[in-house]
Amino acid sequence: MSSEAEAPASEQPKVSKKAAKKEEAKLEKLRRRQEASSAVAAAAAPDEEDPLAEKYGEVPLSELQSKEEVGEPYTEVGELGEGMDGRIVLVRGRAQTIRAVGKKMAFVVVRERGFTVQCVVTEKEGLVSRQMVKFVASLNRESIVDVHGSLTVPSSPIKGASQQVEIQVSKIYCVDKALPTLPINLEDAARSEAEIEKALQAGEQLVRVNQDTRLNFRVLDIRTPANQGIFRIQSQVSNIFRQFLLSGGFIEIHTPKLIAGSSEGGSAVFKLDYKGRPACLAQSPQLHKQMAICGDFGRVFEIGPVFRAEDSYTHRHLCEFTGLDVEMEIKKHYFEVMDIVDRLFVTMFDSLNASCKKELEAVGRQYPFEPLKYLRKTLRLTFQEGVQMLKDAGIEIDPFGDLSTEVERKLGQLVLEKYGTEFYILHRYPLAVRPFYTMPCCDDPAYSNSFDVFIRGEEIISGAQRVHVPELLIKRAEAIGIEVKTIETYVDSFRYGAPPHGGFGVGLERVVMLFCGLNNIRKTSLFPRDPLRISP
Amino acid sequence: MSSEAEAPASEQPKVSKKAAKKEEAKLEKLRRRQEASSAVAAAAAPDEEDPLAEKYGEVPLSELQSKEEVGEPYTEVGELGEGMDGRIVLVRGRAQTIRAVGKKMAFVVVRERGFTVQCVVTEKEGLVSRQMVKFVASLNRESIVDVHGSLTVPSSPIKGASQQVEIQVSKIYCVDKALPTLPINLEDAARSEAEIEKALQAGEQLVRVNQDTRLNFRVLDIRTPANQGIFRIQSQVSNIFRQFLLSGGFIEIHTPKLIAGSSEGGSAVFKLDYKGRPACLAQSPQLHKQMAICGDFGRVFEIGPVFRAEDSYTHRHLCEFTGLDVEMEIKKHYFEVMDIVDRLFVTMFDSLNASCKKELEAVGRQYPFEPLKYLRKTLRLTFQEGVQMLKDAGIEIDPFGDLSTEVERKLGQLVLEKYGTEFYILHRYPLAVRPFYTMPCCDDPAYSNSFDVFIRGEEIISGAQRVHVPELLIKRAEAIGIEVKTIETYVDSFRYGAPPHGGFGVGLERVVMLFCGLNNIRKTSLFPRDPLRISP
Repeated sequence: MSSEAEAPASEQPKVSKKAAKKEEAKLEKLRRRQEASSAVAAAAAPDEEDPLAEKYGEVPLSELQSKEEVGEPYTEVGELGEGMDGRIVLVRGRAQTIRAVGKKMAFVVVRERGFTVQCVVTEKEGLVSRQMVKFVASLNRESIVDVHGSLTVPSSPIKGASQQVEIQVSKIYCVDKALPTLPINLEDAARSEAEIEKALQAGEQLVRVNQDTRLNFRVLDIRTPANQGIFRIQSQVSNIFRQFLLSGGFIEIHTPKLIAGSSEGGSAVFKLDYKGRPACLAQSPQLHKQMAICGDFGRVFEIGPVFRAEDSYTHRHLCEFTGLDVEMEIKKHYFEVMDIVDRLFVTMFDSLNASCKKELEAVGRQYPFEPLKYLRKTLRLTFQEGVQMLKDAGIEIDPFGDLSTEVERKLGQLVLEKYGTEFYILHRYPLAVRPFYTMPCCDDPAYSNSFDVFIRGEEIISGAQRVHVPELLIKRAEAIGIEVKTIETYVDSFRYGAPPHGGFGVGLERVVMLFCGLNNIRKTSLFPRDPLRISP
Repeated sequence: MSSEAEAPASEQPKVSKKAAKKEEAKLEKLRRRQEASSAVAAAAAPDEEDPLAEKYGEVPLSELQSKEEVGEPYTEVGELGEGMDGRIVLVRGRAQTIRAVGKKMAFVVVRERGFTVQCVVTEKEGLVSRQMVKFVASLNRESIVDVHGSLTVPSSPIKGASQQVEIQVSKIYCVDKALPTLPINLEDAARSEAEIEKALQAGEQLVRVNQDTRLNFRVLDIRTPANQGIFRIQSQVSNIFRQFLLSGGFIEIHTPKLIAGSSEGGSAVFKLDYKGRPACLAQSPQLHKQMAICGDFGRVFEIGPVFRAEDSYTHRHLCEFTGLDVEMEIKKHYFEVMDIVDRLFVTMFDSLNASCKKELEAVGRQYPFEPLKYLRKTLRLTFQEGVQMLKDAGIEIDPFGDLSTEVERKLGQLVLEKYGTEFYILHRYPLAVRPFYTMPCCDDPAYSNSFDVFIRGEEIISGAQRVHVPELLIKRAEAIGIEVKTIETYVDSFRYGAPPHGGFGVGLERVVMLFCGLNNIRKTSLFPRDPLRISP
């Protein structure tokens, strides 16, 4: 348990290698301790002298090897409520906290998928033995337990658990035992910065788990209520994305991640040997999703990994992330693509706010954030208008250059002040800062039919109308210095009749990070990959 | 256009390299031809002498660069119906076939997303000029056209188009021009084996497009009605899979494809350099989806690419395919996982039969197949029962060995005869033939709590209860010869309290292939990757 503050992402490289070694040593120690504790465990097994010994104890492995099918049904902890007063239930969950009160009573808070219930074990002749209380008091935290008992509704509210009922335990078994000492304590991992600060002012130093430690022991870290919330929200983002598009006539496709040559040229790719031929990992499904459009699917989307070998140590870059990609025929204008973006994301935000209330609250308790401000009809500004707004605010930038992350953030502030939204589209970017397959504007070839979309001042979406004419595509590729030979198959796809089309790409992790106002993309990737991290 | 028969997959390697060179040369020729044809195109531009010249012609690129937003709305070809008699419509699609009748009339069948409509251009003073008829007659097949006209309902049924209305064309523009000669003709690519045979008996040799040619020009190949159907069915399979699981409390996760070490050991992996460290591509999300269960997500699924560097040249193996993976806590028994498989797939088959009627018909017209036979409650046989059935049929196999593909097929036949189903579960496999993380049976460690699922005699799903106890996991890994050091992070995940759990994995392409009774998995992968193919 490290108490160092979270270092900003850009400084982490130096910390991280050292930390990794430290963590490794710590884990090795834990492993050795566990082996030793196996002996102790045997000693803590139910007392054979106890006539009530069958009502508690460790479940032997043989019982867990599919010996029999479920008999008595289990109730989910999250379902337990006051309306069930007096009911006999069976629940399975983790022993989150264990507290003995003398030798005759013990409390266990049992957690299942983020929901918690207080369980009370009280010595009672012929029903609950003192040995059973002792067994419960000696449980290791995070162990999996099966609890049988009757529900009661206490007269005063229960503070330490989410469910407002108690289980009066009649039987309790340890299904799987956790190490006696864990590399991260769940209550430390679940603590907010505000709690730590508050305690500090009162003279108490609470443990702050730093990010590298969290990621090294991700299996424990993702059990916190905030992380349970984050990944349930992430699942919902994909779900809304897909449902919206499927209902709009899009079909889901899967394009290859193993490709010959580099997918877009430019930035670094992961190279590999493919059966004796040079290959690389796709940096985006760009080329293949366009080929699917040339193949008459009309409107397609894909959710899949994209790979970037860039040496980016920022809070918003990963070497592998989940891309949400869309490509569609357009009849006349790239605004048709922007219309989809607009409706899709307004629908998504509405739906997240409505269906993920509990999850958003859980995230906010540890990482407080203001709900995203967005308009019913998404604001659209041209790049030129953006440059002008910055100029009016005293910030001069190259009108044909790209926006730096800092300038994007500043523009986000200006837009929020003027239009009251943290979600907007900036379009008609200078052609020079966009990929070669971007369609130039018809009235001014210095600009392009392209757009970026921002949440809270950070870019989350890039989109554009594409060049569907082989001759222009070759000209643009050459202008940018791409060897045409390497993209021949792609260019050839447009020789057999190609409809005008456009699309966009979104990073799933970024959407979740920015919707929840989180400060690091590693918080929204289940097992993040960055230049320094390829495990767990 | 090759007229050679489709070689069995196992023989394709030799054909394929030669064929690739031939295709390359062919394409080069086409490219040169196209350049020459640009000049011709200019000549075919609308006659300036024609007072009706504005009613037809090639749309200049500048008009397609988002010059103006959509004015007159487009109607989809698939929506055109008899109820719209007399209506003026605007459609965009491909000129599938063009036929001139003298100099005064021309027919164009326009196709959009597999639906087709017949368009008639008839010379009429002040409305349609003879030059316009000539322009239409000279259109290249597969070019994209915009057609304006009024709908009429002909007295006799239209054979060459899916929609039973005609468009009397008033304006027609070529939006994007295809090469005058295409590497594959769509009608050749859409032809069934039966048609070819029938013609042959009548003394006519029709073109049969072989599989390598199809895959080389996949952008054209996927335009056939059968392929449009296959990939719409594929999209629906993912959709049903997800909806079923989401409604059952599962959440969707995304695990990393870049991993240190090999994901399961055993079969060949693609290796790469990850920022100076050795890494590989995940052969399955197995280890990480189990870690998600240890991280309290309860029930998870993933849809994503999996990578196998095996040298398999069969009809059912790919080097990259789409895995549908599920992992879940189990209370008592691996039957809980099999229950999900059972209900999920019966729901899926029902839903495909109901919602993909048109698509299944389109596939069946080119590749005839019998609808899948399956029971309301999926048949479950133990491995031992399977061995006995084979024995009774005179086939002796090693009762503790794995089933060969051939034996699996034979067992499928026996099951169909005896139980009337082509979809069944075979469970309790010998432990020796399953991965190290498979839970042994409690009553006989020679068997395991595992299962495979078969469609039409071919395996599509593998599943099992997993070992959740670190000590047993290490013992099993060592027994199988895996260096424990390489899977330490994975093993450690089970030290912090691990619930009993199980899961399964399915190949999306195999599900579609076998549901539709197709003979090659390359037909159900948009851009397949096998040991010899990494493009397009």
